[in-house]
Amino acid sequence: MIRKQYIDMLGKKDIIFEIFGYANARRAEVGPDNVYDFSLGNPSVPAPPEVAAAVREITEGTDPLSLHGYSPAGGIPQVREAIAKDLNRRCGISYEGKHIFMTCGAAAALAHAMRAVTEPGAAILAFAPCFPEYAPYAEGAGCVLKTVPADTESFQINMEAAEKMLTPDVQAVILNSPNNPSGIVCSTQTVQALADLLERKSAEYGHRIWLISDEPYRELLFSGTDSPYIASYYADTITCYSFSKSLSLPGERIGYAAVNPAAENADLVISVMAQVSRTTGHNGAPALWQRVAARTCHLTADLSVYEKNKDILLAALREYGYHCVEPGGSFYMFPRALEEDAEAFCRRAMEMDLMLVPGDNFGCPGHFRIAYCVPTEKVLASLPVFKRLAESYGA
Amino acid sequence: MIRKQYIDMLGKKDIIFEIFGYANARRAEVGPDNVYDFSLGNPSVPAPPEVAAAVREITEGTDPLSLHGYSPAGGIPQVREAIAKDLNRRCGISYEGKHIFMTCGAAAALAHAMRAVTEPGAAILAFAPCFPEYAPYAEGAGCVLKTVPADTESFQINMEAAEKMLTPDVQAVILNSPNNPSGIVCSTQTVQALADLLERKSAEYGHRIWLISDEPYRELLFSGTDSPYIASYYADTITCYSFSKSLSLPGERIGYAAVNPAAENADLVISVMAQVSRTTGHNGAPALWQRVAARTCHLTADLSVYEKNKDILLAALREYGYHCVEPGGSFYMFPRALEEDAEAFCRRAMEMDLMLVPGDNFGCPGHFRIAYCVPTEKVLASLPVFKRLAESYGA
Repeated sequence: MIRKQYIDMLGKKDIIFEIFGYANARRAEVGPDNVYDFSLGNPSVPAPPEVAAAVREITEGTDPLSLHGYSPAGGIPQVREAIAKDLNRRCGISYEGKHIFMTCGAAAALAHAMRAVTEPGAAILAFAPCFPEYAPYAEGAGCVLKTVPADTESFQINMEAAEKMLTPDVQAVILNSPNNPSGIVCSTQTVQALADLLERKSAEYGHRIWLISDEPYRELLFSGTDSPYIASYYADTITCYSFSKSLSLPGERIGYAAVNPAAENADLVISVMAQVSRTTGHNGAPALWQRVAARTCHLTADLSVYEKNKDILLAALREYGYHCVEPGGSFYMFPRALEEDAEAFCRRAMEMDLMLVPGDNFGCPGHFRIAYCVPTEKVLASLPVFKRLAESYGA
Repeated sequence: MIRKQYIDMLGKKDIIFEIFGYANARRAEVGPDNVYDFSLGNPSVPAPPEVAAAVREITEGTDPLSLHGYSPAGGIPQVREAIAKDLNRRCGISYEGKHIFMTCGAAAALAHAMRAVTEPGAAILAFAPCFPEYAPYAEGAGCVLKTVPADTESFQINMEAAEKMLTPDVQAVILNSPNNPSGIVCSTQTVQALADLLERKSAEYGHRIWLISDEPYRELLFSGTDSPYIASYYADTITCYSFSKSLSLPGERIGYAAVNPAAENADLVISVMAQVSRTTGHNGAPALWQRVAARTCHLTADLSVYEKNKDILLAALREYGYHCVEPGGSFYMFPRALEEDAEAFCRRAMEMDLMLVPGDNFGCPGHFRIAYCVPTEKVLASLPVFKRLAESYGA
């Protein structure tokens, strides 16, 4: 037997990787200089030099038996404490080490959280536009993902639609700010309104609704952006984090889930996450990377290029006639496509060797994602192609 | 909500970690020299120096963006090829890179394999004594683990019981050789008999029964042991491996699942495993450790201490009146307890600061596990305690 559920997933092609694959083929054909690939969210700035230094110092200065030994399910105690301390400095919550559960990236943190705070058959609510992989995580947890339609004017939350969809079967809500794909950061007003809604509905339904806050882009913030720390507004929040973007380490699979100390049964949630690990065969994040994260969690890679790229692209695209809500962070923007069918629009862009991702997979048709985690020269070189694309639509 | 399934798991205490915790407390009280801790399967020999050298060379010699970037779901292509090549040299099968799926250790490989080649509701068959965590992996896959009682005379497979329990609902069978906790290596005769049984039952039931071969101790073999490569005997075999024991890297979570090229739909199984990753949020093994594994997979730590410890312990224990089948590999042995209730026996040992694990959790009451992955001096120092324990039973 080969499980049908997974064979069916194969049928639903991953359009992002398909475009990325096409980009690779074109790079081979016409040369990398002539391909403008904005398809993948892979950081374009190297890890800070302190990461390599930490790897060297830890490897040279630690007895290999203790360095590479098993770590407890939730992570190495000193690592959890170091991360809690750094997080408290940033966000003003009083996490202790025991509230931090080390994971293989934000993906594992999300998948763990969804299993821990729902019962099978529950609904999990997300806000479009959102990361397509939320659906398989929810499915793996035995739940169903429901997506609140986007407010395409602001890409803040469509609160009226959210209230309607927050039915009694919803046991958890996922928020992603700064957002993939829109780059929008939820304002204090939005977060407060969501917290109020969750409080109200939790009281109404007689069960706490959990907020799962997906924050891999938390440190990728542009100047002047209002960026509330989500867990400060709602007690029952699990914050899912990855060092993939802030330290440019996506392949090393290191991140954590932080359970708000104010949450109902915070300690139990952490214990339960260790049981989730036992059922997925994922017992702890890699030990060396835990130690590196503890030493470097106060740092970031040089993230300034992302804001620079955003400024250049946004100004140019608006000049060419594109409509785009200004991102407050991340390395994405999400303009309106120049025809209703964003897939057709992206196909036309592909013919110009400009690789963009249609918004349909993010639950928001009619838009396309630009992942501008590329060198600034590449952004500049792409502008005439964006212009030609707009002109082809008579814009 | 906090999921009941996991809260229930918390209720079933993990006796191994409980004993290990007690050992830690006693080390603080009476000094580490006076505690004889054989509870945990944590390697006692350091990683070979080539591992630290590989970490240094890879970190210094690779562009950080490409070093730490996302790897494809199944692993970095060159890593998969290097591992396939090394495996072919060892085992005489013609794996290609595409048959190797890199995972976070053998645990993840097992959990992936169980999900990939069963349908929810199926039974998975294991042979006692066996690793207690097979049950949560099976449960996570929506399956039920059934355990064939041990043949306590040889700890090879009780083939008659296996045939009876291999009912049509069984879609996969797990074999672990060298075995945790017995240290027994399945003989060629046993593996051939199991393969014949699986062929026969697959034909009878009209569906292929998968063999999941759990081989983290494959390289920990004692001299003169007959050690057939399992997949050579049965086409539909997924070999689950970890570098935890052979390279002493348990905390780094690096291993793989190798799908026999002769298996029905081998390529599809690999593609399906990538979908399993999507539902558990575990997208690829850590990139640095993949590269280190590719460079060092032909090596092992200096494993000779385990055989030396086995020889010393086995001779002494038999002299003191214990009955024990001689291990062929691993760093475990599994003698008969000196009273019927192995838990009571292990509690009495604990009172002498001798930490042993009762066999009940491994599905084999009346026995206890000794994890002799400790320095030889510790083994020697423990002998009078084993003797005193036997004498307390009038042995």
